[in-house]
Amino acid sequence: MSHDHRFALGRFALACGEVMEDAHLSYRVLGQATPTADNLVLYPSSYGAWPEDIDWVVGPILDPERWCVVLVSQFGNGRSSSPSTGGAGVAGHPWPVTHADNVGAQRRLLEEVFGIEAPALIYGWSMGAQQGFHWAVLEPGRCRRLLALCGTARTTPHNRLFLLSLRRALTADPAWNGRCFEAEPLQGLRAFTSIYASWAASQAHFRDLSLAAGGWSSLEDHVDRAWLPHYRRHDPRDLLAMIDTWWASDVATASGCGNDLVAALGRVSAAVTVMAGSHDLYFTPDDCAAEAALIREARFELLPSTLGHRAGNPRDDPALQRRIRDALDALLERSC
Amino acid sequence: MSHDHRFALGRFALACGEVMEDAHLSYRVLGQATPTADNLVLYPSSYGAWPEDIDWVVGPILDPERWCVVLVSQFGNGRSSSPSTGGAGVAGHPWPVTHADNVGAQRRLLEEVFGIEAPALIYGWSMGAQQGFHWAVLEPGRCRRLLALCGTARTTPHNRLFLLSLRRALTADPAWNGRCFEAEPLQGLRAFTSIYASWAASQAHFRDLSLAAGGWSSLEDHVDRAWLPHYRRHDPRDLLAMIDTWWASDVATASGCGNDLVAALGRVSAAVTVMAGSHDLYFTPDDCAAEAALIREARFELLPSTLGHRAGNPRDDPALQRRIRDALDALLERSC
Repeated sequence: MSHDHRFALGRFALACGEVMEDAHLSYRVLGQATPTADNLVLYPSSYGAWPEDIDWVVGPILDPERWCVVLVSQFGNGRSSSPSTGGAGVAGHPWPVTHADNVGAQRRLLEEVFGIEAPALIYGWSMGAQQGFHWAVLEPGRCRRLLALCGTARTTPHNRLFLLSLRRALTADPAWNGRCFEAEPLQGLRAFTSIYASWAASQAHFRDLSLAAGGWSSLEDHVDRAWLPHYRRHDPRDLLAMIDTWWASDVATASGCGNDLVAALGRVSAAVTVMAGSHDLYFTPDDCAAEAALIREARFELLPSTLGHRAGNPRDDPALQRRIRDALDALLERSC
Repeated sequence: MSHDHRFALGRFALACGEVMEDAHLSYRVLGQATPTADNLVLYPSSYGAWPEDIDWVVGPILDPERWCVVLVSQFGNGRSSSPSTGGAGVAGHPWPVTHADNVGAQRRLLEEVFGIEAPALIYGWSMGAQQGFHWAVLEPGRCRRLLALCGTARTTPHNRLFLLSLRRALTADPAWNGRCFEAEPLQGLRAFTSIYASWAASQAHFRDLSLAAGGWSSLEDHVDRAWLPHYRRHDPRDLLAMIDTWWASDVATASGCGNDLVAALGRVSAAVTVMAGSHDLYFTPDDCAAEAALIREARFELLPSTLGHRAGNPRDDPALQRRIRDALDALLERSC
């Protein structure tokens, strides 16, 4: 039913002025495009996500009979051009790829492969929502509708601190020589994962979690078996690269508005629905609501859940899936 | 006005069955004891705190004309018996000292040095509050009043995850050989500090922080100059030791109640005021309020502040100091 495609970008100029040789995007298509491809949904990937991690949305949230869903891997995730594919090194910290580059490459994908300028909908969770906001600001004429789940248009200072702790934990490992990893940084990865787990869920999630019922002998065992494999499967250079793109995410600087977020978000003409997890610890409801208030046609909605940040990717939570589907239906009914 | 004293405990049996040879407590006295020492306030130290970090409370909160304040260093902080003083190694993870041991040693200090069984008040912030709860449960006849700021009687699962990430970050450093540190673990300390800063303050604190106004060139610079020195001054073995004591903190197991927190807190006869930081990310208001509800004579109050966990140690915030002083006055008026 689905397999991944490779879209060759050739020599790709990054927004920072550097060039990626032989760049490519990897993407997966689910559902059938109409002859005019007016049913296309673009879903850019979140941190560390591969298409097989997020394609469950097709069905529970996005009807495959109606939509043609294009799951596109962001640069740095190991499928599209990434440090691990030779796409760019990490020696020069930070990794230079930003969401402006993701949007530029995805724009070419839509034009050259699907023959369209604007998708019917952009759907994104977390770093996917960041990319959606960048579409809305940088390409207002090509972004009609955006459903942004648990993400912000500009990375907040506290969120950067979280990213700093991840980067430092990973590069504290003896395998890191200051420029690259000489072996698998397993101790660093175990620290990295503990940090990630503590922020990505919520205090209440861990309060309610039964280690015994899950078959875990201890909290460490839970982290090492339920969380670590998700990050360990990645090349650690890619983990750093995606951190740097996340850190730099800012629609204001990306759009030449300097520090002026109000001006940047004022450019958005799309109908937007922003959904925030009630217990999201890094894309907090306050931050998401404050940005939504700066977008002309935005509505803000809470996703009440102790899943925290993960409420926006509720693979195993039909109630949350229904809420997102309802919000999507309402978004589709708005004129734009 | 103040200097630290050393109280020799000799051969000190720990609750776990192990023995600390030549154990001692370090403590500082501010104010004058009455002839019967009925004005004594016991303030056990928080994580990484030395007396000079917390003695500011004498004046703004605790009147030195009225009270004789005994600031006692908890085991593991580098002043009282600690890995760095030869008090116990960290090779055996976890470090075996618990708050039951801190309470036992502090009880002997009060008896043998001050000649009293019960202080007029136990005051504690963070790990100091943990020790206060252990006093209230383990020594109900000797704990008349407790002001517990931003701490819980039992460490929550999420709080343990935070501690796990700290331990793993510090021991990811190349200087850690699996048993001890062979050099200063500076990379691990920088990761450790980034984690600590992200949890100890709040999202809103960092949102409102002006790096420029503070004279910091970047977020990294801020973390490395405003936060790192506080942890770097410690022997890293002591940092691990205090993590382990915090991890194990649980009045239920300490009192032989197994997993039964209701039974343990049911033993408390003291008048207690529990204050939680409105933005505290690890001792959350929910967790603090839930425990207060299990204590017969407890009142719960919020400390509204974006300082997060640090709202309970408001050295530079006169408004918060006033709130705590008011809560203290109200506590003192209650019969007990």
